Amino acid sequence: MAEGNRNFARMPYQTGSQLARVPARQQLLKRHNLSLVLRQVTASRSLSRAQLAARTGLTKATVSTLVDALMDARLVVERDPERGFIGRPGSPLSLNPQGPSGLGMEINVDYVSCCVVDLTGAVRFRKTIVSGNRLLRPEVVLQRAVRAASLMWRQADAAGLTVFGLGVGVPGLVDFDGVLHRAPNLLEWQGIAPAEVVADMLGRPLQSLYCDNEANLAALGELWFGIRNSLRDFVFVSGEIGVGAGIVIDGELFRGVQGLGGELGHVTVDPMGPACKCGGRGCLERVAGREALLEAAGLPVEVSPDRNRAGSVPELVARAQAGEPTTLYSLEKAGTALGIALSAFLNVLDLPAVVLGGFYAELAPWLIGPVTSELHDRVVNHSWSPTEVVVSSLGAEASVRGAAGITTRRIIDDPSAWFPEILARA
Amino acid sequence: MAEGNRNFARMPYQTGSQLARVPARQQLLKRHNLSLVLRQVTASRSLSRAQLAARTGLTKATVSTLVDALMDARLVVERDPERGFIGRPGSPLSLNPQGPSGLGMEINVDYVSCCVVDLTGAVRFRKTIVSGNRLLRPEVVLQRAVRAASLMWRQADAAGLTVFGLGVGVPGLVDFDGVLHRAPNLLEWQGIAPAEVVADMLGRPLQSLYCDNEANLAALGELWFGIRNSLRDFVFVSGEIGVGAGIVIDGELFRGVQGLGGELGHVTVDPMGPACKCGGRGCLERVAGREALLEAAGLPVEVSPDRNRAGSVPELVARAQAGEPTTLYSLEKAGTALGIALSAFLNVLDLPAVVLGGFYAELAPWLIGPVTSELHDRVVNHSWSPTEVVVSSLGAEASVRGAAGITTRRIIDDPSAWFPEILARA
Repeated sequence: MAEGNRNFARMPYQTGSQLARVPARQQLLKRHNLSLVLRQVTASRSLSRAQLAARTGLTKATVSTLVDALMDARLVVERDPERGFIGRPGSPLSLNPQGPSGLGMEINVDYVSCCVVDLTGAVRFRKTIVSGNRLLRPEVVLQRAVRAASLMWRQADAAGLTVFGLGVGVPGLVDFDGVLHRAPNLLEWQGIAPAEVVADMLGRPLQSLYCDNEANLAALGELWFGIRNSLRDFVFVSGEIGVGAGIVIDGELFRGVQGLGGELGHVTVDPMGPACKCGGRGCLERVAGREALLEAAGLPVEVSPDRNRAGSVPELVARAQAGEPTTLYSLEKAGTALGIALSAFLNVLDLPAVVLGGFYAELAPWLIGPVTSELHDRVVNHSWSPTEVVVSSLGAEASVRGAAGITTRRIIDDPSAWFPEILARA
Repeated sequence: MAEGNRNFARMPYQTGSQLARVPARQQLLKRHNLSLVLRQVTASRSLSRAQLAARTGLTKATVSTLVDALMDARLVVERDPERGFIGRPGSPLSLNPQGPSGLGMEINVDYVSCCVVDLTGAVRFRKTIVSGNRLLRPEVVLQRAVRAASLMWRQADAAGLTVFGLGVGVPGLVDFDGVLHRAPNLLEWQGIAPAEVVADMLGRPLQSLYCDNEANLAALGELWFGIRNSLRDFVFVSGEIGVGAGIVIDGELFRGVQGLGGELGHVTVDPMGPACKCGGRGCLERVAGREALLEAAGLPVEVSPDRNRAGSVPELVARAQAGEPTTLYSLEKAGTALGIALSAFLNVLDLPAVVLGGFYAELAPWLIGPVTSELHDRVVNHSWSPTEVVVSSLGAEASVRGAAGITTRRIIDDPSAWFPEILARA
């Protein structure tokens, strides 16, 4: 599990710099070509060997060898030949839904969520438990989460699926080694490596472990499974108790230099504003986080046992729909603050799209106006590269699906790293 | 000049994705190994063939072939063997100071600057002209700049140097194609590709053209030629009439997704603050830009014919040294605003260092305190990855040196792209 224990978020960069430093060798070529073929199959869902050769520039013989190796590893399946309209029939290749799958887990302030996705990205099993975690000891929360995950794993066993890896999302600062340094809304969570702890508690073999901020994983969920799969560059805003952001650039997660970037919730929107738990003042979270917003709208902020009513967001929506002035005013104010903080992000990153996720998705009808207006005024390049504001299609599931998808994407990006036996056959 | 006309800033990413998409071929290996060897020579300044083989993992025979090809192309020189203390003498290799050189130009609001740097990074010729450009037509400014550059080129000719490429820095939004979209402080500069225009006016062959925001080029200047060459991740803050920022991540310029990122000067530091030329309100530039700061300190803001006194910054320094209260208060306020805006950048990017450049370098003794204090309070990951505040060592030359260095760095990064004949010999 040596390699599996490390987060892989930097892999694209490391791979690039390794290529630049070591002389290329035969094995590197095989590895490169296996991944090339597998990614083409993923992108196209169904492709013949001849089409694969045309798209990759490899010879048909090479493609056949690589495909056979991928089939032996149970990553790819080939359907019976279908007769085309013209010429010889091709056997369409696609990812194997019975191949290795990923277990995802999200531990947030008032719930725990799990799911299993297969290699094709389909959610095969899912479960969410309402759990007021803020004041609980981490062990208690982790036990609840592990019980749910164990149940799910047994369901996967019964369906003949192999769970290959685990991804865990948490609401806090996670470094490149998967260590949670601080979760402002989970009091006792500090210096824990949640994915490793969960793996140990599960007590079953896992080849790949990953832990990250829930907003980063939600951004990946949106990238891989969202409705707009043309979006390759965006900032995903996760409205929960805290306000997080996941940045995707050129189809890759961008975590900042040391992994702790993307902290939208603690961008200053009012230098003299209210003090924040982070030590700052006038942070976005203090105006537009779920609790701040509910408070401003005069609604109670307790956690409800029914997650769908947690923090009274549906009540806020109902009041906004009814045109209640205090509610509308507080939403306008939150949208303006969100626009100011996002402007700073966009002035740095020059991104073409913002995706509103978490409870902001539900409130989007009232937020998009003020957000867009602030971006228009405050983003200096707005005239040349205007930013689109989009609503997340995955709702509360974005993060846990991203967490599960990490495993299957790792396999697709570099199959031989996880199934070294492929190299001998390719 | 087809390839030369394009900005190269995205090359590292393009190269990476090309490697991922096309099957690797023999030529790619040669190209890769040539660059590998040349970058080792650059990093070490003086290296024997045997040392090169040890560092690259290539065989001695391969290294020798590659080195011979690089020497034929006049990129590398080999000194006479020096006797080592132990064993056979090695002939030390280094970059050729008489190899291809780069011409750099900076066009800013109140001056124009040029220089020539050779392959080793040494500045061989330099010239700065004071010129109040704000209200001048671009043609007039460009003619002045081209006259200075022509003179310099003749000096380079006389010294036996071949000027291979041109880099131009401008104070505005420049896209990946080198087009300046907007320069808030140069009224008529819009939709111009300055490097191409200058190249045409010079009327001499140039293989490589590049244009970018002056702060981005200053960041590269600092990266390549600054005193702290261990700094590989930082944001360079360029205090001029405007306030710009150049972001360096893992030794590469990070320009945002569409090239127009890094706009520190237009981050909101006070949502209800004074209106800004950009259309926003309470932008950093309106508090901490040169004119705003001088105005707050009660000093005149006209351009002086003596660049060293331009905008009265030395007067500001003198008053601060004398402890004049209004000056100290305005510097404190500017430093606080700078800290607030930088906090947003650091919350996004999680960078370990800030470099204060332009006139902020001269004012650093009064700015570092308030900047550091705001970062401490407002950057959420400050406790785990504190940000160091460093003062630029290149002063006003950072940008023009970066502009000149672009050319020589392009050659070092991929010599065969610019000297294809090398491939036949390597």
